[in-house]
Amino acid sequence: MHKAPVDFVVGVDVGATKTLAGVVTMNGEILGRTKTKTPSEQSYRQVLSVIAACIEKAISDSNLPRSRIAAVGIGLAGLLDHETGVVKAEPNLGWESVPVKQALERELKLRVFLENDVNAGTLAEYQLGAGVGVKNLVGVFVGTGIGGGLIFDGRLYHGFGGVAGELGHIIVKTNGPRCGCGNRGCLEALASRTAIVRDLAKAIAKGRKSSLSKLIRNGDLRHIGSNTLATAFRDGDKLTMKIVKRSARYCGIGVASVLNLLNPEMVVLGGGVVEAFGSDYVEMVIKAARKQTFPATFQGIQIVPARLGDDAVLLGAACLARENIERLKG
Amino acid sequence: MHKAPVDFVVGVDVGATKTLAGVVTMNGEILGRTKTKTPSEQSYRQVLSVIAACIEKAISDSNLPRSRIAAVGIGLAGLLDHETGVVKAEPNLGWESVPVKQALERELKLRVFLENDVNAGTLAEYQLGAGVGVKNLVGVFVGTGIGGGLIFDGRLYHGFGGVAGELGHIIVKTNGPRCGCGNRGCLEALASRTAIVRDLAKAIAKGRKSSLSKLIRNGDLRHIGSNTLATAFRDGDKLTMKIVKRSARYCGIGVASVLNLLNPEMVVLGGGVVEAFGSDYVEMVIKAARKQTFPATFQGIQIVPARLGDDAVLLGAACLARENIERLKG
Repeated sequence: MHKAPVDFVVGVDVGATKTLAGVVTMNGEILGRTKTKTPSEQSYRQVLSVIAACIEKAISDSNLPRSRIAAVGIGLAGLLDHETGVVKAEPNLGWESVPVKQALERELKLRVFLENDVNAGTLAEYQLGAGVGVKNLVGVFVGTGIGGGLIFDGRLYHGFGGVAGELGHIIVKTNGPRCGCGNRGCLEALASRTAIVRDLAKAIAKGRKSSLSKLIRNGDLRHIGSNTLATAFRDGDKLTMKIVKRSARYCGIGVASVLNLLNPEMVVLGGGVVEAFGSDYVEMVIKAARKQTFPATFQGIQIVPARLGDDAVLLGAACLARENIERLKG
Repeated sequence: MHKAPVDFVVGVDVGATKTLAGVVTMNGEILGRTKTKTPSEQSYRQVLSVIAACIEKAISDSNLPRSRIAAVGIGLAGLLDHETGVVKAEPNLGWESVPVKQALERELKLRVFLENDVNAGTLAEYQLGAGVGVKNLVGVFVGTGIGGGLIFDGRLYHGFGGVAGELGHIIVKTNGPRCGCGNRGCLEALASRTAIVRDLAKAIAKGRKSSLSKLIRNGDLRHIGSNTLATAFRDGDKLTMKIVKRSARYCGIGVASVLNLLNPEMVVLGGGVVEAFGSDYVEMVIKAARKQTFPATFQGIQIVPARLGDDAVLLGAACLARENIERLKG
């Protein structure tokens, strides 16, 4: 059977605060880019109809006939079954056992595929971003939490229960600080933005000086985002620099564990923290990782920043939709 | 082209002290099992001719006509290129850049394939041992050091430079004890027999009571093997029990990191330490791993003892030789 290439698919990034959608061409170009608020406080049916409307708007804004759209790919956080398209648990939206694929296929009359957002972002970097041409790649995304995606032999690796890639929860410091997951010493508890802000708040509470002190209200630094931290870092705030450096060091130690275990060809570093601190952060991660890795394992591998920024999840979801459609056709 | 099954291959386990060889049937039965001392202090040419003689003896003892032997598979420690069959570095034998495949093929007039011993052992457990029927499996071998092998989607995973699986060198305790590799806090530095013996020697030197005290000469416990430790453990020596428990806990933390990252279907625990302490040790590892793993990741997975014991490397090397020959035959 002749395989005609799938020329247009819709990619969607469903986040807790905003949903992005766009029609993606074979070259990874985004047409009819659309952004809308995710009404996370509402019922899942309402959230799904907002997502559907966002998709319809992207298709309509792309000026393509609807018949040219082959499928929709959706990336979203949380635990999901990418085969059935059921979201098992998404804490930010308060979802449990939501049949996203089924519901959206009925509403849109289009094939819908679902993927974890970090997996989607990793696949996008592999197919369209920093990792083009590489065979084995690990994506490391450092933000509020830390997520990972694994590409082995050119394919996204899901593991036995579909939940592989929880890089934020490898243990790098036994008996270390408490993690959001309840355990101690997870990478996420040492290197995420949450960890950086926690350490800053603690140090400031102890009387350490910082340009960020004035932004605290009753010890609460939660409203301090990556950009505020990045400004303090670039302006040379000593406390911020020290704590960010520590985060990068732990991130490098986590990367070293991944390198020693998986010996990938490339590690792509992305997420809000990496974007905010830029090449300074990436360099610190590389330095720490090199120190803890066998020379033979480190040889020839690349540790590079992600290239696709905020578009990664949308693009990766589109790549997956395209792959699935091509597989079904072929 | 018709694929006739490869009925007999030779498997070889080249260790620093002894070399085992045997002709392996399609069912994993070993014929003509042969064991010889590895003359590790001699030149690589002499070691290779001892290995060749060991192989010849196994073939001759199997009473099979030499024409029925399709290939030879060799498992050995150290860094090697399984494609070219060159051993890049084997510290125990003092080898560097030794063309094992080429040299043995010339001597034996048989196809020879090379694999890292831990990878071979993992493959054997997957094809003939604890992991039959499983798709994704991680082998964890705890002995003097700690090694790992990775089976993804039914195939041994080698990584970019062929050195994947260095599970002993994931970092579980940043700033922890110094590892043989030079870094700090590696799993091997916390859970291997080397770590157990180090901690015992240290505690005894500090005056802690133990039934093992009388075996020490000038603080040197190096001659204490896994069986001596196992006897003290089973006899209820409190210090040994405490330190072995700690080793198992760290091993479980390492396994938890692997589970969170890779979500395999099965973890097979093998090696001298696991064999010596048996199901007690395995249970302690499972308990610690469960505590540090997401319930969704732990669900349905199995953590089980290896089944093939000392035959694992020989059998795995034979499996690989068989696979390679079948692939070459097309």
